[in-house]
Amino acid sequence: MTEADGIRIQRPTRELTEKIADTLRFLSADQVQKANSGHPGMPMGAAEIAATLLTRLKIDPRDEKWFNRDRFILSAGHASSLLYSMLCLAGFLTLDDLRDFRQLGSRTPGHPEYGVTPGVDASTGPLGAGLAMAVGMATAQSALAEIYNTPKFDIIDHFTYALAGDGCLMEGVAYEAMSLAGHLGLGRLIVIYDSNSISIDGATDITFTEDVEGRARAMDWQVLAVDGHDVGALSDAIDRAREDATHPSLIVARTTIAKGSPNKAGKASSHGAPLGAEELAAAKAARGWPLDDFHIPAEVAAYFDIRRGEWLAWRQEWNRRYAQYEKKHHALAKELSRVLAGDPPKQWKNAVAPFPSDKPIANRAAGGRVLNQLAAVIPELIGGSADLTPANLTAINSGDNPEFLNKGVFLGRNLHFGVREHAMGCFVNGMALYGGFIPFCATFLAFHDYMRPALRLAALMRLRSIFVYTHDSFMVGEDGPTHQPVEQLASLRTIPRLHVWRPADANETIFAWQAAIERRDGPTAICLSRQELPVLDRSILAPARETLKGMYILEPETGGTADILIVASGGEVALALATAAALRERGRRVRVTSAPCLEAFKLQAEGYRKKILPRRIRKRLVIEAGVIQGWEGILGDTGVFVGLDDFGHSGKPAALSEKLGFSAAAVIEKIDQAGW
Amino acid sequence: MTEADGIRIQRPTRELTEKIADTLRFLSADQVQKANSGHPGMPMGAAEIAATLLTRLKIDPRDEKWFNRDRFILSAGHASSLLYSMLCLAGFLTLDDLRDFRQLGSRTPGHPEYGVTPGVDASTGPLGAGLAMAVGMATAQSALAEIYNTPKFDIIDHFTYALAGDGCLMEGVAYEAMSLAGHLGLGRLIVIYDSNSISIDGATDITFTEDVEGRARAMDWQVLAVDGHDVGALSDAIDRAREDATHPSLIVARTTIAKGSPNKAGKASSHGAPLGAEELAAAKAARGWPLDDFHIPAEVAAYFDIRRGEWLAWRQEWNRRYAQYEKKHHALAKELSRVLAGDPPKQWKNAVAPFPSDKPIANRAAGGRVLNQLAAVIPELIGGSADLTPANLTAINSGDNPEFLNKGVFLGRNLHFGVREHAMGCFVNGMALYGGFIPFCATFLAFHDYMRPALRLAALMRLRSIFVYTHDSFMVGEDGPTHQPVEQLASLRTIPRLHVWRPADANETIFAWQAAIERRDGPTAICLSRQELPVLDRSILAPARETLKGMYILEPETGGTADILIVASGGEVALALATAAALRERGRRVRVTSAPCLEAFKLQAEGYRKKILPRRIRKRLVIEAGVIQGWEGILGDTGVFVGLDDFGHSGKPAALSEKLGFSAAAVIEKIDQAGW
Repeated sequence: MTEADGIRIQRPTRELTEKIADTLRFLSADQVQKANSGHPGMPMGAAEIAATLLTRLKIDPRDEKWFNRDRFILSAGHASSLLYSMLCLAGFLTLDDLRDFRQLGSRTPGHPEYGVTPGVDASTGPLGAGLAMAVGMATAQSALAEIYNTPKFDIIDHFTYALAGDGCLMEGVAYEAMSLAGHLGLGRLIVIYDSNSISIDGATDITFTEDVEGRARAMDWQVLAVDGHDVGALSDAIDRAREDATHPSLIVARTTIAKGSPNKAGKASSHGAPLGAEELAAAKAARGWPLDDFHIPAEVAAYFDIRRGEWLAWRQEWNRRYAQYEKKHHALAKELSRVLAGDPPKQWKNAVAPFPSDKPIANRAAGGRVLNQLAAVIPELIGGSADLTPANLTAINSGDNPEFLNKGVFLGRNLHFGVREHAMGCFVNGMALYGGFIPFCATFLAFHDYMRPALRLAALMRLRSIFVYTHDSFMVGEDGPTHQPVEQLASLRTIPRLHVWRPADANETIFAWQAAIERRDGPTAICLSRQELPVLDRSILAPARETLKGMYILEPETGGTADILIVASGGEVALALATAAALRERGRRVRVTSAPCLEAFKLQAEGYRKKILPRRIRKRLVIEAGVIQGWEGILGDTGVFVGLDDFGHSGKPAALSEKLGFSAAAVIEKIDQAGW
Repeated sequence: MTEADGIRIQRPTRELTEKIADTLRFLSADQVQKANSGHPGMPMGAAEIAATLLTRLKIDPRDEKWFNRDRFILSAGHASSLLYSMLCLAGFLTLDDLRDFRQLGSRTPGHPEYGVTPGVDASTGPLGAGLAMAVGMATAQSALAEIYNTPKFDIIDHFTYALAGDGCLMEGVAYEAMSLAGHLGLGRLIVIYDSNSISIDGATDITFTEDVEGRARAMDWQVLAVDGHDVGALSDAIDRAREDATHPSLIVARTTIAKGSPNKAGKASSHGAPLGAEELAAAKAARGWPLDDFHIPAEVAAYFDIRRGEWLAWRQEWNRRYAQYEKKHHALAKELSRVLAGDPPKQWKNAVAPFPSDKPIANRAAGGRVLNQLAAVIPELIGGSADLTPANLTAINSGDNPEFLNKGVFLGRNLHFGVREHAMGCFVNGMALYGGFIPFCATFLAFHDYMRPALRLAALMRLRSIFVYTHDSFMVGEDGPTHQPVEQLASLRTIPRLHVWRPADANETIFAWQAAIERRDGPTAICLSRQELPVLDRSILAPARETLKGMYILEPETGGTADILIVASGGEVALALATAAALRERGRRVRVTSAPCLEAFKLQAEGYRKKILPRRIRKRLVIEAGVIQGWEGILGDTGVFVGLDDFGHSGKPAALSEKLGFSAAAVIEKIDQAGW
């Protein structure tokens, strides 16, 4: 048969596909057995799904980053051995890689890791997240296709597949993502649900008895139910899923976990522990499979030799098309190449005008203005809020196509994520993984908690995901403790590889955004005030570009060596300056240091860091409207901390400041108590 | 008409109910207007829902904690002014309370706060969480009724109501909770969905177009759709919801946000900002309402005067029934009174046997044994895992009714939460709020991230929720970085009021559990190792009961004042002891301190704290397999930290220990580098 792009492909016979399935089944079980660790149940149960999918995927092991490849996310990351078996047959991995399964330093870690294993499109393991990332990817694809495809050139025309299990479907993040995907009508998204009715605790009927098909239909998905061991039915379902261009498809594939294992098939005990040598041998015998480890039948190997040729031909054909596209649509192709490389347009930094210091502005409002100035010159900057757009002030009103992205409106640049913080975070990660966009999302800082697993994955995968968190302190005011962050700044800073910015004013906000966009090796959180803040007068204070160093001397001491160092972040920098002024009136030599990003500061040269935190200044005062954690290293043995150690209250911001001790008078009282 | 318990109640006429609705509508709008802050849209739109519900609720303002009262959770917490208006008419709050809306120190904070406002059954505001807590409450109710009701005495026979908005329904946690509620068949749970099709960003059709009714039906809920401004239809729907004893009910009430406001009804602009004096006056005029603030029509006041009499009669009738029940079922009543008071049976601490030090045991296994010994004597100890029971080892196999709790099996003590961490946390909070149980839940420490908002709410409400987190370090091994906690201990410790235990061995685990159960003013997290750990020999080390102090000298220095203090937690305590032994061979005077709970330590007297962290020992070594945050205060200016500053790897635990520097030799090398 032929595909739309004219390349002949050879669909394997049912018999051969079933042999491929058994190959995947036993390669996977062998990995787990050899490692004596891992999850054989789903790989054995989903072997027919994997075999069918593998014979349909458009990928190329010779170029694992080929842009128009089909994406495949194993949302049920514990079935990693199955993915590695697929990648081995396809030619991305070797049998030696499989033999190294789960060993330190191997290319086949316990759960799939993006950047570690060629052919792995996302790190998965935390359940549901993979499916949500796939939704982000499929959206990125549709949006990019809308921009860059032309009537004659469908240069982006692949599919995004995800394989999910019962555990994924139970997670709230998967529901949120599926609801959004149904709303957006992501016709290029195909999720296969390995419905084996077994979870770790036992049969899913102990807790998960909902009608998943009905639920998916209620979310406007095409739902196709098949016997997950019938390769013909699976292939037909994939055909039908591909044909529906306006709905995401859920293929519900009913399977038996650990299929092929005489004594463990259908049982929870097969989920997360090796079968045991004896049972594995019995399974192989029962299916007429050679008993030797890591066996690949000659006809299977031969098929994939041919298949690799087809994949290469496919990619070469695409390359030819792309070369024509480049010729015909030179500017478009150049732009596509730029956005795929992840490089913003030259001179983008010049788009942002500094803020004058004559009137105050809330950092969230400053952030919105900066975002818009950047968006006007960086068309790939795209994002939205979890239903807090008018509060986060993250609407893009500038540039081309400022309207919102929706079903059939994939040119829009504003995404309405709905009140779905967790899926939003994963979605943005999916867009970042896909490429072509610099995605951001936004909510209140207090509600960062809802999406924390997405930040961890972004950090783990070193993605350029940008998380905007406004309403960054108790100065939220009347909405009260549920809406007032207290521990969030500290808890964000615990996440390795995440950079957490909390600018002091509008001009620091410019550089926080700049740093987020420049950063290529990890995610950024930008925490912005709800309340108005003075725009610091840079004619008498340090220039705002110093922000990029993470910590810098905002207002140096005068009249000799400083005896007090005040360090503050965000809205509390203004209080630090006021406190310093009051202390100077009392004859103290005070230095004020702004600390917009502790992680960026840690990357500075040692000499600079010593200059900013000189050992000789032992009277260190830190002011931040949050818990002390993360500041104790700077405070040292003799520092004083002005912050919070309990939740906030509902009340007017001024009343809260007074009650919580955030005034120069209260700070100075604390200093006096310390005997400074 | 009469209710089942024989008390005559007077259903207000349609006309009167509509007047009550308008009273609630304008009392709410007046609060927001006077505070010049808040959310008038939903209170005005859901006024008929609130009025109908209020005339059906079985509560008593004279005893806000009356145990058999109906529970009412305003899941859409931003509609707090509506709840306060209801509580004012009912007699829990005064008009002066309403005038104080959102002011610091008032009983009417911006979002409902449990413990602050009489009649508020849960703190809400973070969307979806209220609905999930209601599911926990309704389960607790069903379970308690199963245990304590007798054929003649339905002493627990109330309903649990929740009012949710579009935002709640969009959240993954609400989906998870609804799926679980449908599975459990919670016939006493009635959720009213104020479907006003407006969210902050605009009409919900910009992002939330799923068929909510179809989705709820797919989860085995009874679904009733009504005009949310038709008090008759609402009342009928509540009747039907109450009649279905085996399914939770979702009443989809279609409403117009800000109903009654001539220019803002149906608009997103009414969601989160006051109407403005002019518009509010126009609204009142349009509905023929007096323009004066906080108006309560005489007939409405009179109705609630009568109503309060009925409520009192209801409660007195229940008291009479309960007195008979006490006589007839003396032991049962005594037990019920005990569990409702939250006091475990006397001598419960004696149930747990110490662990011998002759063989190692994983803390998770020790935790499972302790849990079972406690469960055998504390029948109200109940809980489960998010589908990791065989890994968390949290199954209760002892005591009465160890089977699992399920639809129609409400005697069981093991809950299968499914892979629904976030709902699980909220569920446990709901049980803790309800009373009668000491609830716990469990998952891997790395997946704490999924349920973080639930921990925050538990802390905010000071609930005795117990969170068990096993697999507490990279020693998870082959499952790799997605499953290995690195930042989680630190991030847990950032949450105010939460106590985080990480015991060093099996016997410390006993006291961690003991502390969790003894604690009455906040939640506890118990972090337990996956790997086997030596059981410390208490004949030569400090007694294990010292654990309760949070930090204690496990192995004092000998031969003079210590020059090195080693502090460690969890599995790293054994490494601390080994390191100390090696250092002593080199002639150093080393003290080893175990730090199972930094929060408990902070509650010790200053004298004790100074003894544990004497200023004179400046060479402080801290060992914990996590990030440094939270330890810097103890490390001081001269300490050395052995921990992690990046994510882990997939590999055998021993290989990871080696690579990451968790061996006595590697620690000593670090000390040597520090020039100690």
